[in-house]
Amino acid sequence: MESDEANTTNRPAEVDRFPNRDHAIVAQRVQRLFLHLNPPPDFSDAVALVPCAGRAKIDVNTDQLSKYMRGKYRDVQQRVYDYFNSRPELQTPIEISKDEHRELCMRQLMGLVREAGIKPFRYVVEDPAQYFAILEAVGSVDMSLGIKMGVQYSLWGGSVLNLGTKKHRDKYFEGIDNMEYPGCFAMTELHHGSFLAALSVSRSNVQGIQTVATFDPVKDEFIIDTPNDGAIKWWIGNAAVHGKFATVFGLILPNDIKGASDMGVHAFIVPIRDMKTHIALPGVEIHDCGHKVGLNGVDNGALRFHSVRIPRDNLLNRFGDVSRDGKYTSSLPSINKRFAATLGELVGGRVGLAYSSVGVLKIAVIIAVRYSLLRQQFGPPKQPEISILDYQSQQHKLMPMLASTYAFHFATLHLVNIYSEMKKTHDEQLVGDVHALSAGLKAYVTSYTAKSLSICREACGGHGYAAVNRFGSLRNDHDIFQTFEGDNTVLLQQVAGYLLKQYQEKFRGGTLTVTWNYLRDSMNSYLSQPNPVTARWEGEDHLRDPKFQLDAFRYRTSRLLHSVAVRLRKHSKTLGSFGAWNRCLNHLLTLAESHIESVVLAKFIDAVRSCPDASSRAALKLVCDLYALDRIWNDIGTYRNVDYVAPNKAKAIHKLTEYLSFQVKNVAKELVDAFDLPDYVTRAPIGMQAAEEAYSQYTQYAGF
Amino acid sequence: MESDEANTTNRPAEVDRFPNRDHAIVAQRVQRLFLHLNPPPDFSDAVALVPCAGRAKIDVNTDQLSKYMRGKYRDVQQRVYDYFNSRPELQTPIEISKDEHRELCMRQLMGLVREAGIKPFRYVVEDPAQYFAILEAVGSVDMSLGIKMGVQYSLWGGSVLNLGTKKHRDKYFEGIDNMEYPGCFAMTELHHGSFLAALSVSRSNVQGIQTVATFDPVKDEFIIDTPNDGAIKWWIGNAAVHGKFATVFGLILPNDIKGASDMGVHAFIVPIRDMKTHIALPGVEIHDCGHKVGLNGVDNGALRFHSVRIPRDNLLNRFGDVSRDGKYTSSLPSINKRFAATLGELVGGRVGLAYSSVGVLKIAVIIAVRYSLLRQQFGPPKQPEISILDYQSQQHKLMPMLASTYAFHFATLHLVNIYSEMKKTHDEQLVGDVHALSAGLKAYVTSYTAKSLSICREACGGHGYAAVNRFGSLRNDHDIFQTFEGDNTVLLQQVAGYLLKQYQEKFRGGTLTVTWNYLRDSMNSYLSQPNPVTARWEGEDHLRDPKFQLDAFRYRTSRLLHSVAVRLRKHSKTLGSFGAWNRCLNHLLTLAESHIESVVLAKFIDAVRSCPDASSRAALKLVCDLYALDRIWNDIGTYRNVDYVAPNKAKAIHKLTEYLSFQVKNVAKELVDAFDLPDYVTRAPIGMQAAEEAYSQYTQYAGF
Repeated sequence: MESDEANTTNRPAEVDRFPNRDHAIVAQRVQRLFLHLNPPPDFSDAVALVPCAGRAKIDVNTDQLSKYMRGKYRDVQQRVYDYFNSRPELQTPIEISKDEHRELCMRQLMGLVREAGIKPFRYVVEDPAQYFAILEAVGSVDMSLGIKMGVQYSLWGGSVLNLGTKKHRDKYFEGIDNMEYPGCFAMTELHHGSFLAALSVSRSNVQGIQTVATFDPVKDEFIIDTPNDGAIKWWIGNAAVHGKFATVFGLILPNDIKGASDMGVHAFIVPIRDMKTHIALPGVEIHDCGHKVGLNGVDNGALRFHSVRIPRDNLLNRFGDVSRDGKYTSSLPSINKRFAATLGELVGGRVGLAYSSVGVLKIAVIIAVRYSLLRQQFGPPKQPEISILDYQSQQHKLMPMLASTYAFHFATLHLVNIYSEMKKTHDEQLVGDVHALSAGLKAYVTSYTAKSLSICREACGGHGYAAVNRFGSLRNDHDIFQTFEGDNTVLLQQVAGYLLKQYQEKFRGGTLTVTWNYLRDSMNSYLSQPNPVTARWEGEDHLRDPKFQLDAFRYRTSRLLHSVAVRLRKHSKTLGSFGAWNRCLNHLLTLAESHIESVVLAKFIDAVRSCPDASSRAALKLVCDLYALDRIWNDIGTYRNVDYVAPNKAKAIHKLTEYLSFQVKNVAKELVDAFDLPDYVTRAPIGMQAAEEAYSQYTQYAGF
Repeated sequence: MESDEANTTNRPAEVDRFPNRDHAIVAQRVQRLFLHLNPPPDFSDAVALVPCAGRAKIDVNTDQLSKYMRGKYRDVQQRVYDYFNSRPELQTPIEISKDEHRELCMRQLMGLVREAGIKPFRYVVEDPAQYFAILEAVGSVDMSLGIKMGVQYSLWGGSVLNLGTKKHRDKYFEGIDNMEYPGCFAMTELHHGSFLAALSVSRSNVQGIQTVATFDPVKDEFIIDTPNDGAIKWWIGNAAVHGKFATVFGLILPNDIKGASDMGVHAFIVPIRDMKTHIALPGVEIHDCGHKVGLNGVDNGALRFHSVRIPRDNLLNRFGDVSRDGKYTSSLPSINKRFAATLGELVGGRVGLAYSSVGVLKIAVIIAVRYSLLRQQFGPPKQPEISILDYQSQQHKLMPMLASTYAFHFATLHLVNIYSEMKKTHDEQLVGDVHALSAGLKAYVTSYTAKSLSICREACGGHGYAAVNRFGSLRNDHDIFQTFEGDNTVLLQQVAGYLLKQYQEKFRGGTLTVTWNYLRDSMNSYLSQPNPVTARWEGEDHLRDPKFQLDAFRYRTSRLLHSVAVRLRKHSKTLGSFGAWNRCLNHLLTLAESHIESVVLAKFIDAVRSCPDASSRAALKLVCDLYALDRIWNDIGTYRNVDYVAPNKAKAIHKLTEYLSFQVKNVAKELVDAFDLPDYVTRAPIGMQAAEEAYSQYTQYAGF
């Protein structure tokens, strides 16, 4: 806030702490001793930081940078864009009723699969990175389409492939692939939201699901029942209108099964509509969940089962099976293990959401940055007006956001890569890593994007409020990313839980999985106190040194981890483990976010280093520094409280953050162009790549 | 984050600052001396703070509290609620097309005025507090209706009354009042957004408006013209469909006027549609601005004028007039003074927005809190599940928000009162106070509400995403509150500008206006350094002392004000005043927010003190403490950086904030009930006052 005020009062900071004259003398002695050992920092850097119009801006080659960012699945994305661009009747209009939107969305999906020849299903298992690339592209056409596709292939299709066995694959693959078997994923119930959440808080508390399946050995069938209103399957995508099948999660009731007392939650394929007449099958009650805040192209419905009979073969039996005579068998020893294995197969959904959320963020940032460069507002007396991005406040809103978009791009790309690797190798350590990182990145990125969409709208003023300029639909559609596939607050607790587990491992001398092994070093450095010498360093070279940045991020995580472990132990004695966890909940969430930020920064630094083109590398380095320092400044209270950062350094960090925002502003056009999204994908008139067309497109839209 | 960890390591904090052993010895000596003079703080309070189930919760009498909150215009609000409750065909359905919504909204307004006998227009001038009460009530029926009413009476009607003279009042009052003359307020242009903004950044830069008016002395008419695309009047409410008239802002061109070189911006009544046929009049080109993010019940249009002729009498001539022979006269000496007077009359719009924004926030908080109390999720092993509001993280999201809603309630009530007073007395000091406070509160409150609506949706998970539960439409409708009647970023700069003016006054020995005179005292205390003794005080009594809280808020404002004044002076030398302002922009915005928070807290403390009922007073005190300490904790970096708060005190503040959130949670139901909004106003099934009806209403809505 007061970046250059300090220099006007020339007293050493320590002196002010001792009001009494005697104290002041002692303190001054300390101060002198201290300075003797630690020469005062060089202020020349700080002077060099003052932005001036003459300073050369970085030269960014958009093509080179874009090439580095693009990844290997750009071609299939382009095919998606081209297909919809060539079919205007398949493009979602600005205003459309819920029912029309649902039908259009179905036609879009059919067109994609049957006309454009994009078959996402084969990639769900074989090449997930390609699947996610398609998902991102489809989502930028209409997010409802992205979600509808995800329901069909990742959730309904994915559950059949991952939770079923060969017989299921043989029977259903073709129909799911070509959309003859549109299906649903029926986990969530009215009284218990995203069930995926359950696992994290308490592993003994997976009983949220109340839907039941009873085996009838006479007819060799399961009977599916909804025992009460709270157990109605709710928010089920594809259920209200289009679904023919549903993967239904329910408890196998023990009473009709020999040799086991409780089998826990399993998944069943339940046909819900007649294949020919499309009428709901006997015992299946289907209602429409109605209008939503967004994603109205997806037909979410509610399902109630009244003794619905399905063949025994419809149990997705990879992790647990029931034989012809009703005997239950499983390769996994407990309900919780089986449930964990079941949920574990569904982690891809989170990977996809984190990845697609960055796609949404890119579109919003492109529109907001281009408009902010275009829009003129005021200026020095008798001089031309300046663009609103020339204002420090607008840079403050948008430049750290642009930097974060780059950061998340690389982080989610990394996540997709390790997820693909995991799918191939089934490496145990990778499994843990992917689970925690997908939970954490999904939560962190979707929360960030949700906030950013509001900031972008507001930063674009009145024209940002025109529906045609997209912020409204992007925000409304994306909003639920924070909730589905696991509520963000719950997912962050999973991350905190994993961190605590790693912390215990460390003290037991065990190994740490890849993403977490920084904890080993930084935990050691935490156990010593912050270095008061480096705490005062404030030169630009130091602050832009990746080592300083990463150390600061990791120190914070380590400290939060250590301190929450101490608090949990203390509170457990009086409150029990559940009560202690709740007492420390805010602390745990901060820890999880801090860890995710550490991982994001580490991946960003890697990406900068790996970039082969020098000018692109310089641009990425600039953006990476802004990402790192902005985050440190945002949490400066924490760093100050433990004296990891001295007051002079805090001011230098703030000043440099503002300066880097200014620097990034100078190449903001190139940086958003490098996301390589054509105008017919971003679509907002005010966000046109050619600035001179923006207003005319906009007035034409209004009929001028 | 680490509220109770400090006690586990028993070293004095000072020691850690000196790693070297010699330093440590010196430091310990200082520490001992220090403790000798300043006895260590009493930790017994901290122990007492540990929340335990047995501790008695405050007993809140909802009726008493509600009575205190209600204000004197509750009756007219109830009439609005009753009218719409008795006319289901006038209630806005969940899904409605833009065109139908516009027609419905017009029918709602007609019904209100002609059937329910609510005549807002007479109150615009006579009793603004009553007008704002009606506006708030109408906005909670449908925010589009609130805005449409505001356009008709406050903007179109208000401009005729406030900028015109008796002849205009005589001619138009009746038609505006009874809706025979629906009208528009045409200020904003395509290339220059809310023109109200212009004044703040640079008083010499009001030339944003390009629409022109030329006087034709032969025909005694003005000719209104849109000189280019950028000057098209944009976003004009009531223009696309219903308006018959528009108050059009344009520059009076000098060339046809004798005796003046430049007359600046004036307002004209321009008929835009035929009174009988409703066809656009010759030369008036009207287009539809189309679908918006929200408020689609308001028909925003774009207006282009092609040499449109209007009688000379249609100039709203209170601040400047043109005689029959074309001579310009004004009681005000300059263009800027005239423009300031013109805009000054329109300040009521901001008051109304700030006030209505609190109304929106109340609805959202009611729904989110009630649902969070209803919704069960997990719990300790083998015990019943607990409500999600029992989780610290949910308390953290919602309880400071509930506290802020109370704080803003009293602050905006105060604003309405001083605005009404100003309208009666025209007291000069009051005018300045109202202008700055309405700008600041409008900006601060609407930004806060906008963020909170997203947090509420997310806090209510999947069911918060059902359109019927209202967060979506509340957010989409309210979103633009941040932009219209002056962009928030610009308005905050106005506040900062006023503060700097007051700062200069102070040094000149002048008087300060009422809301600002705290600066006199706190500026003096700023000029001395923070007191290192009180900086360590951490007892609950101290932290909950209004004096400590208000001192902290005001110290921060004073410090920010002093430091930005120093920076502006310094940078002006090299960058000029415009460049210096821009270089300090983030700092200036923080200053403005800090000041507004100070005013809000002061008004809240007054309201607590004035509450006649002891139990209500205790509840309000609790909520006020949470508001104050949460804000201090949010900006703890600032306080730590200047050692206003020592590390131990920072931790105590954090801990107390979490504890107060827990305490407020215990009376959260009573606190939201006291807002006294019936279920048929809040309308969300999940936010029903009787918890047992919530889920059943919700499943019934879906057709079960």
